[in-house]
Amino acid sequence: MTGLRIDSARLQGRLETLGGIGRDATGRLARLAATDADRAGRDQVASWMREAGLEVLVDRVGNLFGLWRTGDAGAPPLMLGSHIDTVIDAGIYDGCLGVLAGIEVVHTLREANVRPARPIAVGAFTNEEGVRFAPDMMGSLVYAGGLGVAEVLATKGTDGATLGAELARIGYAGPHEPGFLRPFAYLELHIEQGPILEREGFAIGAVENLQGISWQRVTIAGVANHAGTTPMALRHDAGLAAARVVAFVRDRALCPDFRTVATVGCMEFRPNAINVIPSRAVFTVDLRSPDETVLRAEEEALARYLGELAEVEGVAISTERLARTEPVTFDPALVAAIEAVAGKLGLGSRRVTSGAGQDAQMLARICPAAMIFVPSVGGISHNPREFTRPADLAAGANVLLGVVRALV
Amino acid sequence: MTGLRIDSARLQGRLETLGGIGRDATGRLARLAATDADRAGRDQVASWMREAGLEVLVDRVGNLFGLWRTGDAGAPPLMLGSHIDTVIDAGIYDGCLGVLAGIEVVHTLREANVRPARPIAVGAFTNEEGVRFAPDMMGSLVYAGGLGVAEVLATKGTDGATLGAELARIGYAGPHEPGFLRPFAYLELHIEQGPILEREGFAIGAVENLQGISWQRVTIAGVANHAGTTPMALRHDAGLAAARVVAFVRDRALCPDFRTVATVGCMEFRPNAINVIPSRAVFTVDLRSPDETVLRAEEEALARYLGELAEVEGVAISTERLARTEPVTFDPALVAAIEAVAGKLGLGSRRVTSGAGQDAQMLARICPAAMIFVPSVGGISHNPREFTRPADLAAGANVLLGVVRALV
Repeated sequence: MTGLRIDSARLQGRLETLGGIGRDATGRLARLAATDADRAGRDQVASWMREAGLEVLVDRVGNLFGLWRTGDAGAPPLMLGSHIDTVIDAGIYDGCLGVLAGIEVVHTLREANVRPARPIAVGAFTNEEGVRFAPDMMGSLVYAGGLGVAEVLATKGTDGATLGAELARIGYAGPHEPGFLRPFAYLELHIEQGPILEREGFAIGAVENLQGISWQRVTIAGVANHAGTTPMALRHDAGLAAARVVAFVRDRALCPDFRTVATVGCMEFRPNAINVIPSRAVFTVDLRSPDETVLRAEEEALARYLGELAEVEGVAISTERLARTEPVTFDPALVAAIEAVAGKLGLGSRRVTSGAGQDAQMLARICPAAMIFVPSVGGISHNPREFTRPADLAAGANVLLGVVRALV
Repeated sequence: MTGLRIDSARLQGRLETLGGIGRDATGRLARLAATDADRAGRDQVASWMREAGLEVLVDRVGNLFGLWRTGDAGAPPLMLGSHIDTVIDAGIYDGCLGVLAGIEVVHTLREANVRPARPIAVGAFTNEEGVRFAPDMMGSLVYAGGLGVAEVLATKGTDGATLGAELARIGYAGPHEPGFLRPFAYLELHIEQGPILEREGFAIGAVENLQGISWQRVTIAGVANHAGTTPMALRHDAGLAAARVVAFVRDRALCPDFRTVATVGCMEFRPNAINVIPSRAVFTVDLRSPDETVLRAEEEALARYLGELAEVEGVAISTERLARTEPVTFDPALVAAIEAVAGKLGLGSRRVTSGAGQDAQMLARICPAAMIFVPSVGGISHNPREFTRPADLAAGANVLLGVVRALV
């Protein structure tokens, strides 16, 4: 391991510059996919790619790549990347760190006149967050062949706009077929978005796997009735039934044997009036586990419970699957390489599971892939208070640099 | 008991005519207080009052009265009444029955040349439903001296309009001080809005008391965080805490010792995103009991539980009182008179508790009061499917007629 290090001030400055793009009058950050703010962010990133000597290439679904044609130009490139789209009222690190650290690694290698044996690409995948267009991780999913280009370009956003038209409008409907650069391997540096590394005092997480995710929408139909005149025993209260489900999934997830997390994030009552028994409750259930068998068992336990509850409460319950991904196991050799580089740099590391979905899980379908996590202060993410200390950002980028050097 | 009977076809026809006023293009009925629809309904009712020989009088908060100056003109009048404002997407019976049956009773007496010994008034109280202006039962509350006229006239509606200005606009800001007719007694015929009479096969409910009502808004502040990366044990999930409260109030109310009903009708999560742990849940708790001691004990039990829950879940919980009324016991002699008349007419009756708030509970502050209930099919109310069979409407109005004859 040479003493080569990334320029942490440059990386930090670029994170802050990019984080300043897409703020509204109140300072709130939102760069939703294929919006004007996304265009401004992409333009900035493309300009930094060019500054680092990368050739900018865009595919048909807007995935943005910077390619360093070096070494054996015909060899599959090592790919680094992540995404630069954000949630609404976002922090500045989620996704952006992986893209900007990738550019920084290339920039550092070029400045040091290192000539890798194979090409290196840095990718920023379209619409990882899925806020405006569903599903999330869209660009990387298409890139890995999991979804058709035509279907994705026809996707309607929450604002009624079509992704294809919006990409064309902002100038990022490129000519290349998704998957045109078949990666030799894929590495993604990302903030943890959880509290474990900070709480346990590790600078680096070597991400060995990623939870499978099951998203369902549950609709409970009861009977609206007067809150004062309807005896408790004669009620068919959709809101009460929904509350029972919230408690059920929580109580199962708290059981340490299951290794799942469970969240009810969305909830709506109808008619939502103080003195009317709810006729309808609609809510979401987010179940995650790194073990597919466990995840399936949890889905089945929920389905059984909903069946029993419908009978007990005299309500009708239907479910709709919104998303389902299987757990992903990352490439063991890459995970070991991350640990080894961290060790050589004197950085404490531990193996971790990604609780969030990531572009890396899609790339893992077509090449060896792994991720490096750095600590999120307080575990906070998808929030303006999202923060990773500059030293941790630099440490993560230097581990990425070290693994790149070991691979190319 | 003579054979005098109300004209059930006329009563039924007027209920349907009034129920046709205030419908939108889709047929949905809404006559919110002091709207154009309310004016049209009032105009129709005032015209029927005049047709029945009643003198139309309006007080400063829009309470509308038809007065029959008969017998001892200086004696306090027997008052019959209810309200004609409705909820949104209402049925045609709630409130309207009490007003139109009152007019019908007077009309029947005049046509039979009966000359009561004291005056009879029929009242339609402003804004019983409280949909546009808070609080509900507003007109009767002011009439009974429970709220000041100036304060009520300055009330802002959900649409930003002021009640006083709206009453003036629709021509129902009258000259009389609320309370100007001090009633000798007050009788209100109303649909049950609950399922008990129909399920048990009684035509008449002699309402002996009315539940106290406690309305609170509960706000739970937790910590928003990533649904995939935040371990279950580290969560401060406002939505989960809210669900625990919904289950708590239900489970206590199901306990037959308590004689309470409990309802969570409104529920909102923030940020209400599928993959974000709710940072905030806001919901309402509606507790009712005919026994003030029990109602207070239930409020205290809820407060204790919220305190424990805040500690267990690491969330902050605050409550805001939205409304509170004590239980009301109606006049025992009037209740007995209702039972006696029902018996003479061959109608099965039972004593019941009103689960809903009613204008009669306000009038009970200033005079002996009682209510007559008739069955609601399926217990359905505040709903276009609200329905009471014509024979039951007529039976209720004939009981009202019989009690009036017994009193004047």
